[in-house]
Amino acid sequence: MGKYSLGLDFGTLDGRAVLVDVRTGEELATTVYTYTDGVIDEVLPDSKTKLDPDWALQNPADYLGVLKCAIPEVLKKSNVSPKDIIGIGVDFTSCTILPIDKQGTPLCMKDKWKSNPHSWVKLWKHHAAEPYANRLKDIALKRQEKFIHRYGDKISSEWMLPKIWQVLEEAPEIYEATDRFIEAGDWLVLQLTGKERRSSCNAGYKAIWDKKEGYPSPEFFAALHPRLKNVVEEKLSTDIYPSGSKAGGLTPQMARLTGLKENTPVAVEIIDAHSAVPATTVTQPGKMVLTMGTSTCHMLLSKEQKFIPGIPGVVEDGILPGFFGYEAGQAAVGDIFDWFVSNYVPVSYEKEAQKLGINIYRFLEEKASKLKPGENEIIALDWWNGNRSILNNADLSGLLLGLTLNTKPEDIYRALIEATAFGTRMIMETFVNNGLPIDELYACGGMPHKDKMLMQIYADVTGREIKIASSRQASALGAAMFGALAAGSEAGGYDSIEEAVIHMASLEKKTYIPIPENVEVYNQLFTEYRKLHDYFGREGNQIMERLKRR
Amino acid sequence: MGKYSLGLDFGTLDGRAVLVDVRTGEELATTVYTYTDGVIDEVLPDSKTKLDPDWALQNPADYLGVLKCAIPEVLKKSNVSPKDIIGIGVDFTSCTILPIDKQGTPLCMKDKWKSNPHSWVKLWKHHAAEPYANRLKDIALKRQEKFIHRYGDKISSEWMLPKIWQVLEEAPEIYEATDRFIEAGDWLVLQLTGKERRSSCNAGYKAIWDKKEGYPSPEFFAALHPRLKNVVEEKLSTDIYPSGSKAGGLTPQMARLTGLKENTPVAVEIIDAHSAVPATTVTQPGKMVLTMGTSTCHMLLSKEQKFIPGIPGVVEDGILPGFFGYEAGQAAVGDIFDWFVSNYVPVSYEKEAQKLGINIYRFLEEKASKLKPGENEIIALDWWNGNRSILNNADLSGLLLGLTLNTKPEDIYRALIEATAFGTRMIMETFVNNGLPIDELYACGGMPHKDKMLMQIYADVTGREIKIASSRQASALGAAMFGALAAGSEAGGYDSIEEAVIHMASLEKKTYIPIPENVEVYNQLFTEYRKLHDYFGREGNQIMERLKRR
Repeated sequence: MGKYSLGLDFGTLDGRAVLVDVRTGEELATTVYTYTDGVIDEVLPDSKTKLDPDWALQNPADYLGVLKCAIPEVLKKSNVSPKDIIGIGVDFTSCTILPIDKQGTPLCMKDKWKSNPHSWVKLWKHHAAEPYANRLKDIALKRQEKFIHRYGDKISSEWMLPKIWQVLEEAPEIYEATDRFIEAGDWLVLQLTGKERRSSCNAGYKAIWDKKEGYPSPEFFAALHPRLKNVVEEKLSTDIYPSGSKAGGLTPQMARLTGLKENTPVAVEIIDAHSAVPATTVTQPGKMVLTMGTSTCHMLLSKEQKFIPGIPGVVEDGILPGFFGYEAGQAAVGDIFDWFVSNYVPVSYEKEAQKLGINIYRFLEEKASKLKPGENEIIALDWWNGNRSILNNADLSGLLLGLTLNTKPEDIYRALIEATAFGTRMIMETFVNNGLPIDELYACGGMPHKDKMLMQIYADVTGREIKIASSRQASALGAAMFGALAAGSEAGGYDSIEEAVIHMASLEKKTYIPIPENVEVYNQLFTEYRKLHDYFGREGNQIMERLKRR
Repeated sequence: MGKYSLGLDFGTLDGRAVLVDVRTGEELATTVYTYTDGVIDEVLPDSKTKLDPDWALQNPADYLGVLKCAIPEVLKKSNVSPKDIIGIGVDFTSCTILPIDKQGTPLCMKDKWKSNPHSWVKLWKHHAAEPYANRLKDIALKRQEKFIHRYGDKISSEWMLPKIWQVLEEAPEIYEATDRFIEAGDWLVLQLTGKERRSSCNAGYKAIWDKKEGYPSPEFFAALHPRLKNVVEEKLSTDIYPSGSKAGGLTPQMARLTGLKENTPVAVEIIDAHSAVPATTVTQPGKMVLTMGTSTCHMLLSKEQKFIPGIPGVVEDGILPGFFGYEAGQAAVGDIFDWFVSNYVPVSYEKEAQKLGINIYRFLEEKASKLKPGENEIIALDWWNGNRSILNNADLSGLLLGLTLNTKPEDIYRALIEATAFGTRMIMETFVNNGLPIDELYACGGMPHKDKMLMQIYADVTGREIKIASSRQASALGAAMFGALAAGSEAGGYDSIEEAVIHMASLEKKTYIPIPENVEVYNQLFTEYRKLHDYFGREGNQIMERLKRR
């Protein structure tokens, strides 16, 4: 009789439940629940309250929908008995935060607040806190706060404190009514266990917390705004737990809702991208993990702590215990391809694809894969959603250069893919030039399994062999692995992540090896990319900011 | 009983015949003949011989098709008797040239040569002679040739001598077999009249000829290539005639082919854009004429000769007798919009437009016209077909900057229109800063009648009132006006272009007046455009050239 662990993976558009065999890593069943309200970026669900550009909210009811619908469904599908499910792990997008009251109820679920946009979940890609992020950074640098160096001297508008500051400034009544600002992932664990167990992963990467130094000082917060002075004490949890530790057991109420067994161990939440690291078999330095989806996250382990300009986070125990975990990211990757495919593909292509019986992505890939590197004569800057690493500037925007009357959709499509590969190389070089070597790349997420041309371009652009996680849902598998850790060996789980990796994670046979002649061409093109990157991204010409801020 | 003049207008994709009442300017009938082979830019009509990128050829049989089909048809439609047709005028794209033998037969019509691409007509937008244009310019500058200053110190790859040099270098056997290299417009007049009457307009703007100085010297040509030393004497006509003069009378053979009367006076050919100047009522300095179509031509008259950097032509009597005619141009305008509409409009838009019963251009215009200036947050460089004025560099390419995940097709469509308006402003400022004032703009061509938003954007970007020619086919009307000049007053025509303008040309009532608040925003955005223009177009970053030349 097997032992199983349940991984719950909360993404940007949906949440999924995956039931995994703890001994083999086999994924027995998966169910996906698509959020009803998805990304709320134009108008609140009341259809009346309009949002400014750069806003991106979510409805926490959608997260509960995952528990209520996806878990019973996965039990039914797999035919596994709840008593054989030894642990539950949760991964979540981040930094995705919401204000809750003393009972843990989101303010947006209360009639009094629901028409105020600030009462809703601020999704990771909510960028309207940009001015607060910039002021926070400026004040930190001026005060020579040590913490700012841990984040490459930059603060992202996606992070928790700029988002909280935005609430205070723009909706002080919501700030006042809030008992806790909480990461959505931590809130989910609170729903499952009745206990708030703040994850070190979130606190470290997204809330300027450090295992040794803690949060910034009240004096620093007071320098931002007098009312923020005691924000940590008043509005945040300071009980912080590493990934893989047990948060608590499933409450009776949740057991009823989900069909799982009462008291099933639940792990402390982990950021979705980070959860994928062990699921991609990586537990050592020198192997960078890319989780590639709507955006891409780059993770690297090291025994050393270094402060790297432009790399926005180094957190002790942040990814795996015993290592400093480094995280970098590109704010849009798959999102850019989707933007192009949804808005800029002509009827003739749609028809041809239909005739061939393939989807439009495959059709474009087929056409684009016939082009040699450089043949499209286009260089793009992949900043459609700003630049997270290494410039950390949400006001940057996308660029296409080299367009002619002969430019075809597949030329642009390929250039967009190449641009995201150059963006990844820029991040890698930043690590390498600061003494953190990268020998191999490990990829997971939706794209590596689907898009062969893209993976070969990444290998050719980066000059590294790329290995692919077997699982097509590495974050969810990672969550299940952390669930097995929460259960521990006594219950049939594991006591170390290395053990869990040996049994539960694996790689595809097919790897992507750089093709020397392509590497050479891309080396030249990367020089061009870097020049544009530095001209528009640093001090050369701040036209992108000016266009957005007009 | 009326008197009529026939205008023959040879464009890039078709040729048209327009029958005009000489006393009123009324256009009685128009017929359009679409070239069967159109622009030959991938493979020769034999379907076997492939062309390199940057090539653009035509088939002279298509020009004869216009004579044979469009003229009889326009006679039939108008019900006018051939004996009341007092003159014929011809305008043509330029510089569009072909090699012919002693009998005037195009080499591409001979079995021996037809599979050699160099035997065909090289269309104005054939850009494969770029290296020769650059070498010609470099050698001229090094030798301190005076003529180069008349062309703003630049030589375009679209012009006659680089194209001839390309033939010599790449197909010496064709060069050898050629009796004359001739402008297609002059060839057409040769077909009609049996006489070669080279137009001063073509010779001056496109073949480095000057009324006082003649062609460059044999020594200069020898410095290019020993075989070119006597190119003028051996391969070009030196009998050069101003626009509006009579080339000859219609031959019996052509009278039979077309149904016109033998000996009907035919005017010396004029470049299509230039032909539009009198048709737009302009016969004085200070009024810039824009002929707006696939590309845009900017023409200005002056009593003074000035050498303006980046303005590629000042020709005495080149547009109208008694004036120095200045010509500048944007190599792609409507072509860019067509590129976008043909390749980058999604199915959903096509469907919506269909539902509304409007074409996709109008649909995009409706959406784009709802945007305020600057609201799209995009700046484009309008170099999809290189930059003719003021940079004269065919290796430049298009750029889109400011793209985000929220960018919609109408945002880009509007940015493309704005970019072409900025390009026009850049040309205007170059004239004005060099002492040639521009008080008003006069527009003709297809776009000014169709696209209100575009015209308002041009008025707002340039800060000038824009008046529109009544005729929707100003070049053809202009050709008919020159036909009336060739006939002269004795035959019921005119002896001066001013007289012809009074009777035959008129303006629309609706004019476009700059809106002050838009002018202000566009002044700011033009500053951004200029900065990008100078960075990528001058010495800042020659990435566009490098990408094309890899």
